Amino acid sequence: MNDTQLYAEIINIGDELLDGHTVNSNAAWMSAALRGIGIPVLRHTVVADEGAAIVRALDGVMAETTHVFVTGGLGPTEDDRTKAVITDYFGGHLVFHQDIYDMIEARFRARGRILSPLNRGQAMLPDNAELIPNGRGTASGMIFRKGGRTFYLMPGVPYEMQDIMERSLLPKLAGQSGLRLIERSVHTFGIPESEIAEMIENHFPELRRDVSLGFYPSVKGITLRLKGKDGGELDKYVSGICEILGDTVVSLNPESMAEVVLTLCRERGLSLALAESCTGGLISSMITDIPGSSRVFREGYVAYSNEAKVNVLGVDPEILRGYGAVSEETVRAMALGARERSGADIAAAVSGIAGPDGGSPEKPVGTVWIAVSYGDRTLTHKISYDRGRRKNKEYAAHAALNLIRLALLADVRS
Amino acid sequence: MNDTQLYAEIINIGDELLDGHTVNSNAAWMSAALRGIGIPVLRHTVVADEGAAIVRALDGVMAETTHVFVTGGLGPTEDDRTKAVITDYFGGHLVFHQDIYDMIEARFRARGRILSPLNRGQAMLPDNAELIPNGRGTASGMIFRKGGRTFYLMPGVPYEMQDIMERSLLPKLAGQSGLRLIERSVHTFGIPESEIAEMIENHFPELRRDVSLGFYPSVKGITLRLKGKDGGELDKYVSGICEILGDTVVSLNPESMAEVVLTLCRERGLSLALAESCTGGLISSMITDIPGSSRVFREGYVAYSNEAKVNVLGVDPEILRGYGAVSEETVRAMALGARERSGADIAAAVSGIAGPDGGSPEKPVGTVWIAVSYGDRTLTHKISYDRGRRKNKEYAAHAALNLIRLALLADVRS
Repeated sequence: MNDTQLYAEIINIGDELLDGHTVNSNAAWMSAALRGIGIPVLRHTVVADEGAAIVRALDGVMAETTHVFVTGGLGPTEDDRTKAVITDYFGGHLVFHQDIYDMIEARFRARGRILSPLNRGQAMLPDNAELIPNGRGTASGMIFRKGGRTFYLMPGVPYEMQDIMERSLLPKLAGQSGLRLIERSVHTFGIPESEIAEMIENHFPELRRDVSLGFYPSVKGITLRLKGKDGGELDKYVSGICEILGDTVVSLNPESMAEVVLTLCRERGLSLALAESCTGGLISSMITDIPGSSRVFREGYVAYSNEAKVNVLGVDPEILRGYGAVSEETVRAMALGARERSGADIAAAVSGIAGPDGGSPEKPVGTVWIAVSYGDRTLTHKISYDRGRRKNKEYAAHAALNLIRLALLADVRS
Repeated sequence: MNDTQLYAEIINIGDELLDGHTVNSNAAWMSAALRGIGIPVLRHTVVADEGAAIVRALDGVMAETTHVFVTGGLGPTEDDRTKAVITDYFGGHLVFHQDIYDMIEARFRARGRILSPLNRGQAMLPDNAELIPNGRGTASGMIFRKGGRTFYLMPGVPYEMQDIMERSLLPKLAGQSGLRLIERSVHTFGIPESEIAEMIENHFPELRRDVSLGFYPSVKGITLRLKGKDGGELDKYVSGICEILGDTVVSLNPESMAEVVLTLCRERGLSLALAESCTGGLISSMITDIPGSSRVFREGYVAYSNEAKVNVLGVDPEILRGYGAVSEETVRAMALGARERSGADIAAAVSGIAGPDGGSPEKPVGTVWIAVSYGDRTLTHKISYDRGRRKNKEYAAHAALNLIRLALLADVRS
């Protein structure tokens, strides 16, 4: 391992980021990628696509920073002035690059399109930068050097930036940085942050002295993140934490809850079906985000209306009349119906009130019933979680997947 | 309208943001909210939850900035040191607030939970700040003043920050800022950025002189954003652009493609069913993200396997054998099957290769067939778009919704 310590900063240029129209997912992606090769990111800065703001950001780079990653402002349309400002900042000039022009033209020809004058501008490039090929677009990346630092300029389109990072920059930088703070994560579901913190405090009062511990709550559960220099020590704490937290620990990897459930099913050779009311297809979509899910996931029914619950899933109308659509009895019938119709080994069903309307004093918005039918048992669980329609769907989806997970784990134990 | 111009900066404190574990959605949300009340955001800065970094960020606020919004580091667990550092920065001390403690305790009691010593720390608050109530958590917001600027400190949990902004800060700041750059958006689907840019250039060569125009491409299509000071002038350009772009214009509002389709259905009193293969429930989930969608959306089938396409949707096995699951014939049969089984007025079906595996030279990854059955017609459309499994699903979902939209618009015209 190299002793030189590299530190990065990220500057994202874009009015759409400052306007709040676009969420800055580039900064997170780049940070994770750089962390992966031992280069910590010290700061993210987002500035307007405007000369003075860009120059101020470049001038304001921190003393410790060795590598600066800049995105934005290299697209084909006229609102991108960044290239000229930046070239000037590094003391160069934009000149026409015939080779780049020919490449862009070939790219267009291959797609049956004609090069527009706007795209011609993408062949105007600095005379003082190393150019980086962009495998997914017409805007080249650029490398400038100044004041002992290296500056990387990339387009703001995530797909193109990622191509440049993955194919050209990360392989070159990997192994150059000395620092690799080791990290372990513990993903939990169904237990409050303060309760976990207290349990850890009680069992491992010395933990905070040895490693740093952070808590990251979301609809996906609470993630604990331990960082330190000694991998063996981290592993010891992780084992200890897993022991005290039991089956509320979902995973130690960055995999999603859906991946955990799919893996459990695949290992056991089990097939899965879903009957969704208030989650409206979200659980199916989370499952099918995973490559290879087709080997486990048999079919999904989005039965939003009572009619669909009766016609598609075979729920007895008497149950719906007697207990209502959001009830333990209805989700149980939905799960059994989905299992029977699909022939799957496991079926989960969800019915609840996603909001903002439809709540009542007995069943407020956020009330969701979940059932999982597996073997000769049907587990049910009720949640109350109201953080707005979309978050309610996401939380209910995670809770449903978690109940499948618990059903499969319980099966192993019994 | 007030003449004073306010300018904001946002500072987000959080190791999880710099690590890339969490995408900074707070900055986007806050920026959009501030823009809505006429306060432009000049910069976003993300720094580590570490004293020196926080102080440097506070010291580095730009000369023009009048209001600084800071999030992060106010949670119940020990990794949040921010409060002490910031209180010290503004020359105050943390003192125990009995009234806040009583409120936190009452909150816990109402949920049947016992206050942990960690939560007690949340009642330690500065003696030199105005406290802002947090309706959704135990960490209070704070207002400090220094050097003619106002600093707002909020917890990093989006749901809590949003409560503080919406209930306390935005109403107070609304109407205080003089600048309101007027903005219009045109959302398009199915036409390349450079083509739109050229059409606008040709028809309205003077546009760039009068207003600023930005292009924002994503899987949702391309959004054009016009900004200027004269609303009438902007409206004139928007009408002109809509005329030249025709039915590739999806909407002038920030509504989603799913909302546009739902509105078209609702206006016509039509019901909708979906049969999804490669999108795996995503379209159903996008539709059911919208409150009130149950009045239009009848049912959804996620028919991932060939068996499901036959059993659930009634696709003739001969069609699957003869043309394959990803073919015009199969999606047509899926759409007709979904329409028949659900009794809905319109049904859309999607079948494709989401990747990363399953492609072939004739049908590479990203090949997706879409069918929409409505009235006595079934429209079909093929797309080729490969930017990774998740993006492929999202693009296919938007393309399917767009085909429903076009089918409904064509019906009006014919």
